[in-house]
Amino acid sequence: MTGFVVLLGITAASFSFGMVAVLSTMIGTAAGRLGRVERALVNQGLFGYNAVLTGIGIFVFLQGSNRWWIALIGAFLSTVVTAAMMQWLAKLKIPVLTFPFAVLTWLILLVSYRFEAVKIGPTLSPAALSAVTINRNETPDMISGWIHGIGQVYIMDHLWAGILILVGVFLAGWKQGLLALGGSIVGWSTAYFLRADMSWLNTGLYGYNAALTFLAIGGVFGHGNKTALIAGAVGAAFSVPMTAGISVFLAPYGLPAFTMPFILTTWLYLGSRQFLRNW
Amino acid sequence: MTGFVVLLGITAASFSFGMVAVLSTMIGTAAGRLGRVERALVNQGLFGYNAVLTGIGIFVFLQGSNRWWIALIGAFLSTVVTAAMMQWLAKLKIPVLTFPFAVLTWLILLVSYRFEAVKIGPTLSPAALSAVTINRNETPDMISGWIHGIGQVYIMDHLWAGILILVGVFLAGWKQGLLALGGSIVGWSTAYFLRADMSWLNTGLYGYNAALTFLAIGGVFGHGNKTALIAGAVGAAFSVPMTAGISVFLAPYGLPAFTMPFILTTWLYLGSRQFLRNW
Amino acid sequence: MTGFVVLLGITAASFSFGMVAVLSTMIGTAAGRLGRVERALVNQGLFGYNAVLTGIGIFVFLQGSNRWWIALIGAFLSTVVTAAMMQWLAKLKIPVLTFPFAVLTWLILLVSYRFEAVKIGPTLSPAALSAVTINRNETPDMISGWIHGIGQVYIMDHLWAGILILVGVFLAGWKQGLLALGGSIVGWSTAYFLRADMSWLNTGLYGYNAALTFLAIGGVFGHGNKTALIAGAVGAAFSVPMTAGISVFLAPYGLPAFTMPFILTTWLYLGSRQFLRNW
Repeated sequence: MTGFVVLLGITAASFSFGMVAVLSTMIGTAAGRLGRVERALVNQGLFGYNAVLTGIGIFVFLQGSNRWWIALIGAFLSTVVTAAMMQWLAKLKIPVLTFPFAVLTWLILLVSYRFEAVKIGPTLSPAALSAVTINRNETPDMISGWIHGIGQVYIMDHLWAGILILVGVFLAGWKQGLLALGGSIVGWSTAYFLRADMSWLNTGLYGYNAALTFLAIGGVFGHGNKTALIAGAVGAAFSVPMTAGISVFLAPYGLPAFTMPFILTTWLYLGSRQFLRNW
Repeated sequence: MTGFVVLLGITAASFSFGMVAVLSTMIGTAAGRLGRVERALVNQGLFGYNAVLTGIGIFVFLQGSNRWWIALIGAFLSTVVTAAMMQWLAKLKIPVLTFPFAVLTWLILLVSYRFEAVKIGPTLSPAALSAVTINRNETPDMISGWIHGIGQVYIMDHLWAGILILVGVFLAGWKQGLLALGGSIVGWSTAYFLRADMSWLNTGLYGYNAALTFLAIGGVFGHGNKTALIAGAVGAAFSVPMTAGISVFLAPYGLPAFTMPFILTTWLYLGSRQFLRNW
Repeated sequence: MTGFVVLLGITAASFSFGMVAVLSTMIGTAAGRLGRVERALVNQGLFGYNAVLTGIGIFVFLQGSNRWWIALIGAFLSTVVTAAMMQWLAKLKIPVLTFPFAVLTWLILLVSYRFEAVKIGPTLSPAALSAVTINRNETPDMISGWIHGIGQVYIMDHLWAGILILVGVFLAGWKQGLLALGGSIVGWSTAYFLRADMSWLNTGLYGYNAALTFLAIGGVFGHGNKTALIAGAVGAAFSVPMTAGISVFLAPYGLPAFTMPFILTTWLYLGSRQFLRNW
């Protein structure tokens, strides 16, 4: 049910996006099955999740008709990267999360500078740090920004996508819904307080990593207890400078931070938890 | 015998290159021996291989007379890096391959921007992504491109070097020869299909990583069985976008991708093989 | 006693720096305690050391009054990063050293390009590699350069800071003092020989990583035996090209190399020691 409403949200942004999402999920799950990955792992959704994000990520930021098959090949490749990362990160006892999506999509977007068959879209443009500016002239629209923060989890810069995806998360459980929305609010507020770019605030670019982080630390890994909720809120706030720093590092390449801030923040929480035993 | 013919190929490109190759191999092997590395490991050639590539890589891309001793010190340092990487990667059960060569040579080439004693050659020039272009005006020369792809395994942009190195690989075994040549062809064709830069195609820059990948996955690690051959061909093809992406990432630094695409592709194959059990 | 004299040295450079150092150490140690890290680990000083460097690093390179609380939040966050790194690096049997400081401070300095509340100071300016120059017109001042190399261990570009910190190290033991001073001299000389930028030589920027490396390899990890001293001197010399290479890699971001050259050099020594058994 959640999956269906999320898909509806993606389709609301664009019918093509919905198509890519469905096909990528199918490819990701099928590749996992074909490769005889243990059924439990495939069903857990890790393969499908990375595949759908990779497919959408490539499709949204490329242009031209080739992006169809590039997105689907990307979805397939994401399963290989996911399998390898699971193998390696297991030894460090950290979860793969959406690391394969972020790294693989970066790679494929960069490829556009070397192949005429791969055309980068107009929204991404490489810039030296001296050319990075902070736009403070837009009017911040709080609630719209929070909702966009949810939509950006699936790389959707679209209000209705955000609303429907949020509904989907609430359908999975009201706790999850509150954590996701709360995370987006914490992210937005932290960025607002630090005097961030207004258009980034309005399009939810400081919200989605915070939402994912709050969900992961406060919910999935923290088992929802009280200290985990506090750690989750701190993590959601920390994902904001993480987003800023990573996006500056990527500025010369014109790449978005994707979910890397969420991944690194969650890893830091999990890694430090062993030592800082009060968390 | 293979070693001798490969050396002949390198010498065909330039007598100095041959000298550096011989001296670097000697330094690499001697350093391994002196450090009392287990004889088996040294004989396996990992230390010598990284040393010779590091020596040649530094020598080819630097200029001025200082490059002689810088290349040889680099060859020595490569043994330290190789030893450390063997130690660390053993825990992840992935082989070192030529990772020490790629990383150390990058470091030493970058150093030229801070020391007058280290002079970077004219072929490498840093460029912002906005200045990266795709040259489609050259006429592609298929067979020459395939052979150059073999020569580039030893960083040789030279037809006779390519021919002799290929002969050397065939002398080691006709299967190896076919895999190397096949890999170079797969790489060239994938890049051609993706409408890559023609001068990159003609100088084999999309071939050598594909050749190494096909050899590693189809031969060394895949034990030459049928699924391994298919995986090797897919890997060889994947090394092409990998080469493009890494070279774009390095463009602001003016560094070549070296063998990093081969290394990462092979690691991904080995890491994912545990999970995707049909490979 | 050592701590007190080092603090005096930092305060000599600027009273604010001293304040930040004291507060950061307190935060680092308190966070470790609060998190119920085993007392032994906290007392070992790793948490405090990374906290104080992070606090000072942020404070020195930012400007405006906000840098006070940003530095202290940074000091707190450094304990989380330190805890996580300890967890992960333990599996590779390599020590954390000051890795958390270097990475976290880089992140927070980059953040300034996205938030108006975080103001980068005037000393750091991003530059394309084509704009990197080597200033050979200053007169080298050997002894001052060596002392500055000691001061730069705590990011102090100040002669008296260098002198007092050196006194502090000697108070901890004359061997440590000699290793630190010797390392700074080895670093300075290697860079001078390679014809480095004169103002970098005079401000000790090639000295501090060499000093730390000599201390770590020759002293702490090498147990002061004779081969360890030779390895330490080689390591100190190698930290110089390492510093140059890393600083070039960071040039487009305008970030200093911090202690990363020391960290990587020491890791390489420790990793390779298992194999190269004569070290």
